[in-house]
Amino acid sequence: MSGNIYGTLFRIATFGESHGAAIGGVIDGCPAGIKLDLAAIQRDLDRRKPGQSAIVTQRKEPDEVVFFSGIFEGQTTGTPIGFAIHNTNQKSKDYSHIKDSYRPSHADYVYDEKYGIRDYRGGGRSSARETASRVVAGAIAKQFLNPVSIQAYVSGVGAIQLDKHPSEVDFSTIEDNPVRCPDLKMAVAMEEYIKQIRKEGDTVGGVITCVIKNVPVGLGEPAFDKLHAELGKAMLSINAVKGFEYGSGFAGTQMKGSQHNDLFNSDGTTQTNRSGGIQGGISNGMDIYFRVAFKPVATIMQQQSTINSKGEPVEMQGKGRHDPCVVPRAVPIVEAMAALVLADFSLLNRTIKS
Amino acid sequence: MSGNIYGTLFRIATFGESHGAAIGGVIDGCPAGIKLDLAAIQRDLDRRKPGQSAIVTQRKEPDEVVFFSGIFEGQTTGTPIGFAIHNTNQKSKDYSHIKDSYRPSHADYVYDEKYGIRDYRGGGRSSARETASRVVAGAIAKQFLNPVSIQAYVSGVGAIQLDKHPSEVDFSTIEDNPVRCPDLKMAVAMEEYIKQIRKEGDTVGGVITCVIKNVPVGLGEPAFDKLHAELGKAMLSINAVKGFEYGSGFAGTQMKGSQHNDLFNSDGTTQTNRSGGIQGGISNGMDIYFRVAFKPVATIMQQQSTINSKGEPVEMQGKGRHDPCVVPRAVPIVEAMAALVLADFSLLNRTIKS
Amino acid sequence: MSGNIYGTLFRIATFGESHGAAIGGVIDGCPAGIKLDLAAIQRDLDRRKPGQSAIVTQRKEPDEVVFFSGIFEGQTTGTPIGFAIHNTNQKSKDYSHIKDSYRPSHADYVYDEKYGIRDYRGGGRSSARETASRVVAGAIAKQFLNPVSIQAYVSGVGAIQLDKHPSEVDFSTIEDNPVRCPDLKMAVAMEEYIKQIRKEGDTVGGVITCVIKNVPVGLGEPAFDKLHAELGKAMLSINAVKGFEYGSGFAGTQMKGSQHNDLFNSDGTTQTNRSGGIQGGISNGMDIYFRVAFKPVATIMQQQSTINSKGEPVEMQGKGRHDPCVVPRAVPIVEAMAALVLADFSLLNRTIKS
Amino acid sequence: MSGNIYGTLFRIATFGESHGAAIGGVIDGCPAGIKLDLAAIQRDLDRRKPGQSAIVTQRKEPDEVVFFSGIFEGQTTGTPIGFAIHNTNQKSKDYSHIKDSYRPSHADYVYDEKYGIRDYRGGGRSSARETASRVVAGAIAKQFLNPVSIQAYVSGVGAIQLDKHPSEVDFSTIEDNPVRCPDLKMAVAMEEYIKQIRKEGDTVGGVITCVIKNVPVGLGEPAFDKLHAELGKAMLSINAVKGFEYGSGFAGTQMKGSQHNDLFNSDGTTQTNRSGGIQGGISNGMDIYFRVAFKPVATIMQQQSTINSKGEPVEMQGKGRHDPCVVPRAVPIVEAMAALVLADFSLLNRTIKS
Repeated sequence: MSGNIYGTLFRIATFGESHGAAIGGVIDGCPAGIKLDLAAIQRDLDRRKPGQSAIVTQRKEPDEVVFFSGIFEGQTTGTPIGFAIHNTNQKSKDYSHIKDSYRPSHADYVYDEKYGIRDYRGGGRSSARETASRVVAGAIAKQFLNPVSIQAYVSGVGAIQLDKHPSEVDFSTIEDNPVRCPDLKMAVAMEEYIKQIRKEGDTVGGVITCVIKNVPVGLGEPAFDKLHAELGKAMLSINAVKGFEYGSGFAGTQMKGSQHNDLFNSDGTTQTNRSGGIQGGISNGMDIYFRVAFKPVATIMQQQSTINSKGEPVEMQGKGRHDPCVVPRAVPIVEAMAALVLADFSLLNRTIKS
Repeated sequence: MSGNIYGTLFRIATFGESHGAAIGGVIDGCPAGIKLDLAAIQRDLDRRKPGQSAIVTQRKEPDEVVFFSGIFEGQTTGTPIGFAIHNTNQKSKDYSHIKDSYRPSHADYVYDEKYGIRDYRGGGRSSARETASRVVAGAIAKQFLNPVSIQAYVSGVGAIQLDKHPSEVDFSTIEDNPVRCPDLKMAVAMEEYIKQIRKEGDTVGGVITCVIKNVPVGLGEPAFDKLHAELGKAMLSINAVKGFEYGSGFAGTQMKGSQHNDLFNSDGTTQTNRSGGIQGGISNGMDIYFRVAFKPVATIMQQQSTINSKGEPVEMQGKGRHDPCVVPRAVPIVEAMAALVLADFSLLNRTIKS
Repeated sequence: MSGNIYGTLFRIATFGESHGAAIGGVIDGCPAGIKLDLAAIQRDLDRRKPGQSAIVTQRKEPDEVVFFSGIFEGQTTGTPIGFAIHNTNQKSKDYSHIKDSYRPSHADYVYDEKYGIRDYRGGGRSSARETASRVVAGAIAKQFLNPVSIQAYVSGVGAIQLDKHPSEVDFSTIEDNPVRCPDLKMAVAMEEYIKQIRKEGDTVGGVITCVIKNVPVGLGEPAFDKLHAELGKAMLSINAVKGFEYGSGFAGTQMKGSQHNDLFNSDGTTQTNRSGGIQGGISNGMDIYFRVAFKPVATIMQQQSTINSKGEPVEMQGKGRHDPCVVPRAVPIVEAMAALVLADFSLLNRTIKS
Repeated sequence: MSGNIYGTLFRIATFGESHGAAIGGVIDGCPAGIKLDLAAIQRDLDRRKPGQSAIVTQRKEPDEVVFFSGIFEGQTTGTPIGFAIHNTNQKSKDYSHIKDSYRPSHADYVYDEKYGIRDYRGGGRSSARETASRVVAGAIAKQFLNPVSIQAYVSGVGAIQLDKHPSEVDFSTIEDNPVRCPDLKMAVAMEEYIKQIRKEGDTVGGVITCVIKNVPVGLGEPAFDKLHAELGKAMLSINAVKGFEYGSGFAGTQMKGSQHNDLFNSDGTTQTNRSGGIQGGISNGMDIYFRVAFKPVATIMQQQSTINSKGEPVEMQGKGRHDPCVVPRAVPIVEAMAALVLADFSLLNRTIKS
């Protein structure tokens, strides 16, 4: 398996299955001299961790990160930062029923076909547990990027959609509710819906919106490595993501150029921001905003017909402790991946002039 | 500027501005022993070229590709394939009016800010002309991928949306109409609308859907380099793209897991295909399908207020010969980028077992 | 700091300073289905570890590797292999004398100039301790490469030079003496010399020769990534290495073409092997052999004049427990790096034909 | 074939066989705003081109470079620089005798084994003609690096060795003689020897020394990507190179640490420079110097026994116009590769601090 290393200059290599000894990674290329707020890193991990509220999986994992290297007297030294999060709550027996069976819309079948071997416990490498390592690296990237601010929130759960433009959202309320929706009335409705879905033994999808402020002009590379192209890849690499749009997105396809164009102010800012803060693949200094679509979790607590590794029909009942809706816990993951992309392009942008 | 090289094993490096001597590229990593159908490569270029119909830009450029290396007696040798498309129709005077002014929603402003220098003629490197090089490389990748078939088509122009699931589309009619919409009635409506938009001196956006058939199981890497993540990046790297969704996409976020899951048949195929042919980032052998959102072209033939490089307000009137809607010409570009992604993952997939 | 990730397909990311909690790494791209002999991995670590004999540093570190992921029921799964070696013997006080002073011919000065911050304990990242992670990855690469065999040995200590062509060497005796020289008489002389050098509080350089057998024809890429070019980089990336030559090497520059050319046998093997198993950057199936030059360790137990971070002259006396000659312990490191290079090119070589 | 792209930030992709339409490349990542001296680029090409003197191959090729992109009004724009050198003197018939036969110590045999197809004309991609593209890119890198100066010269032809330390060499005389040896008496001896070797229909090897001055402190990355490791790879990637050593090199292995260490002056410079300007993989501001070993050219004008593709014995007589000794023409190639390495690390070094 390739593809466990991400980035060009600010790079992360991650490892770990949900039921091994630990997950973790190596951050290579983090600049020297960043005074690290370690508590802030743990806070982002806590926003992602299981058991944090009544509407997420009730697994209990502290998800405490241990740093092995690259930090000296509170600062990054420029050397690689090795870290691990030990797995403490691995109920391997929960997964014996899937040892030889393929869960619908999971990666079990394709793993077996691709590798000829599969660590079936907890989904192995395909478990979303892998994203905790991304959150660690992203939290460090955020501190490097300061004063760039990256804020994600839940803007849709099933059919319940927040009808506010990102520029009108009050970010201060996001962490005040377990759904991480910045509209508290909407948040309550979403929470109720998630609880109902769980009672049904079912799951539901959702949408996360992310807004990035204080972005300098010039991040992103014009051809293949456009800023939004890499943001799109970063988001689509998160488990369960089915779509990505930025700025005017899919709705923008129905507009005319005369409606869509963002006219300039004299200082280079624009009067509108349908471009989503990116023009020609390069940040223009306006807020970057994008939406990320998450499908419903495939593991449901209902009986489903499926097949085993011999192709024989079997019945399967979801077991274990799963999320009825991933978006509340995915908010810090979206932020982390955005931070990794911006950190990388920030470093790259130092190299473009003679 | 970085970011002009794409891919890990099947790689392409492209060069060229719209008003230099030529555009072109180097394909590195193309396997040896592919019997090339050079006419098929030129056919894809012709599907992209200006002046091909009444609803695209009326610039006349033959876009003939010249190969310098890597092909011997009709076959690829495994050595790098260098190629160029000479620029024959460079009306540089058309662009003198933008030398010091910034076109709204174009890359002029960010280029100047980022690089401190800008080849203003024809948009320089930000011109969609760059994508012709991608079409060449993609056309070769298609021949390597055979019998994988990659077929894109226009499924939306402005508010006119094709309401057919990709699995129901008759591909044979796509090239029979200038819009490249597989529903001929709808194609006529789209064509009329584009003509009307052009009369207004305006532009309009659209959507391209792409379907990939005969994909082997196992393409894609589980973590950062998920198959759909790289497809998303590839599509978002095309000029004017604002969004990407695959399988159930954004609509899938409103479904329940019990509705969304694709149940298996005994042979590993699935009864439905909301996964869009990809599970856990890896192809599962079902058809891959995705949708790509294109914004309206920024260059309009109407007067717009903007600023010059000193921040002074200026009036600007679009000149030159531009597309009122890019999607008809973008169809082969979408296919080319999809082919590059699949070729790369096909090679990568040979390396995963001991 | 960049440059802590090595390889294209079989990749390793390493982390760790000599005085942090641990060193370790992530192996990405190791194929699935390799039955791992974990004891063999530890054996290679033991060949590198301090305190193994009377002629190496007397630090005591068990250098036990812990694997976090990527191995299931004794086999590689294809997922990334995370591992760590915990640091157990960190006499940080030994290094307080170099906190503000720059040891001659060490990296202290350039680190401070480059990063503005330095973990001065034990040389930080510039410590050869980092190479233990390479040995772990290389030991796994060896098992993947089987039946390719990689055997290094000491062929020079100071002026004592083994005057035998690699093709005449009896590998079976290498591990029978602490120097790892395959000529036991010569080994005794080298051992005596190293002991004398240590008594003087001095150090001495040496040469390691490496021979690779059973290499398939075709490894290596013709232009920039020639097999010997990457082997050279791999060797030169090991601490204290000053030179690399393969096949006829520097001596070959004094030969005529008519003397140097390797004439073919009818089966494609060659009658002589001045090419060193590589022609045009590609393995030709003959034994690959090369020599690696190691300078004397910079840390000596004698008083030296140097400067501190203010540029003031200071006297410095080497402290701690250092190697009088690195080559005996560097033998498994040379093998490990060679294995990583060959594993990478082996995977790459699967992708070159259609 | 992979491996035709070199570098991380300042990257070059090259293409071209000796008997195709052209060779050339794409330079990606060259910073914007470099005022290019195009004549200086051509001058370096002229130093490499055939027919320049009586002791090199008498093929006549003008080797004129054409730039397609990336340069506007005399400056680099930051966009990729595409270029080609058209092949004008392709005596394909000269090579018909090797269509089915394998020249000893050439790449013919391994190409056939590896790719299953081979452009046998002129050695195809394995021809040293490929290095002309490197010279173009290196000449641009040199201009970016200014005031870093990179100067190579011939220090050995066969057994005739220049016995002067690089710090004592007068560079001003290098281009005054066809051998490119800075000692004119020695140059005459070398020239005579090369002429004699040619008369014998034979070839001879040689050594090139390279000195880099005005290097800033801090270039190079500590672990795998040490400055000298990458320089080594770059040199070993040049056709016919068999070895690389920097600073004290192989001779340094016979020294004691007390003799080898470079003691500091108060300004951070060192009193001696056995380190060769690099410590711990990072430049320390002193002159970088290294030596590159070239084997004798494999094509000789004598009859040799060899095999054909069926393994049958055949007699072969070298034809065509070949170099009796490659080092005079390889001097600008060594410089070019050194420039590419330093340009890359210079850009990388901008990204290491917060």
